[in-house]
Amino acid sequence: MVHQTELHLDTNGHGDSHRVDPELARIVTESGIRNGLVHLFNIGSTAAIVMLEFEDGLCEDLPEILDHLIPPGRHYGHEKAWHDGNAHSHLQATVLGPSLTIPVREGELELGTWQQVVHLECDNKSRQRRIVVTVCGE
Amino acid sequence: MVHQTELHLDTNGHGDSHRVDPELARIVTESGIRNGLVHLFNIGSTAAIVMLEFEDGLCEDLPEILDHLIPPGRHYGHEKAWHDGNAHSHLQATVLGPSLTIPVREGELELGTWQQVVHLECDNKSRQRRIVVTVCGE
Amino acid sequence: MVHQTELHLDTNGHGDSHRVDPELARIVTESGIRNGLVHLFNIGSTAAIVMLEFEDGLCEDLPEILDHLIPPGRHYGHEKAWHDGNAHSHLQATVLGPSLTIPVREGELELGTWQQVVHLECDNKSRQRRIVVTVCGE
Repeated sequence: MVHQTELHLDTNGHGDSHRVDPELARIVTESGIRNGLVHLFNIGSTAAIVMLEFEDGLCEDLPEILDHLIPPGRHYGHEKAWHDGNAHSHLQATVLGPSLTIPVREGELELGTWQQVVHLECDNKSRQRRIVVTVCGE
Repeated sequence: MVHQTELHLDTNGHGDSHRVDPELARIVTESGIRNGLVHLFNIGSTAAIVMLEFEDGLCEDLPEILDHLIPPGRHYGHEKAWHDGNAHSHLQATVLGPSLTIPVREGELELGTWQQVVHLECDNKSRQRRIVVTVCGE
Repeated sequence: MVHQTELHLDTNGHGDSHRVDPELARIVTESGIRNGLVHLFNIGSTAAIVMLEFEDGLCEDLPEILDHLIPPGRHYGHEKAWHDGNAHSHLQATVLGPSLTIPVREGELELGTWQQVVHLECDNKSRQRRIVVTVCGE
């Protein structure tokens, strides 16, 4: 059995994070699938889906360490052709990855207490984001 | 067809690594699934599941490079509220990710000779870990 | 329903990248699966599958930033036993990950316009690569 739908988010530029596991849980319930997997996937090359304890401190720490490791700047090859100042956004999103897959057991997401599913905007401007959600199982 | 179970591990603090692909292979066999995917997922926000050649050198190199890139320290936002000294553990686990999905073909894990499935503890203390394993296929 | 096959690539050493989503789209079509997921997995511990806007700038930027963060060198524990100069290749591939899972909707890959599926060679020599592709769905 496969159930597929999507989520929409408006984001507010680099480092803006949104918790999405409550919406995921609702989708799993409406799917009627009791055991299997739920996969979520950000459409676009400058945002990521990550696992994170969703609290104010880490929500600042994560984009800060990303900018420390892969800093914004004009020296990237990407800038020579595109001049849009977001090469670091692409590279950060690539390292984090666009998707996660989470177990579904007895109709519920299997997550730790402090383990939330988070959409992280890496682009340097506000974006409208689409996340494709696929529940597979029985 | 979906087969779901879990593995348990006792870990010994930051950088402790455990190879889990032999246990995964046993679970795939007991599932009776011949072709599909096996997904494993660490419950908790301070450990990761990674692919690694499981040999002594790399098992030291990986936590060392992680501590070099995302060092322990008290300057993180997470520490201001929680004071538990493991902000770097959260961030390292987020960058590596909590899960892997591996192909199952003719009843076996499809892995390279030097490609092992490894649970990496990123927390700064010993933990009891639970890994949810889901085999999907036919 | 499960459809499984593989792709083969000849790569040209560290930083060589190949776009594989056109081949993936062909495999999804031949599978007959309309809705579900496609998973691709690199066999071997020194290459990665990533999401990237596949343009010349970023195809240079990504291996460059990886070599900046996790540089080649002889100081790794892996080198003491193996002396093959590719410890950084292992560590880079581990951080990026060996696989991606992408939604399939109405028989097509769901990807953004600038979001391509890329095989990235991290090894320091040319390799023949095998990628296992699994399409699951209905």
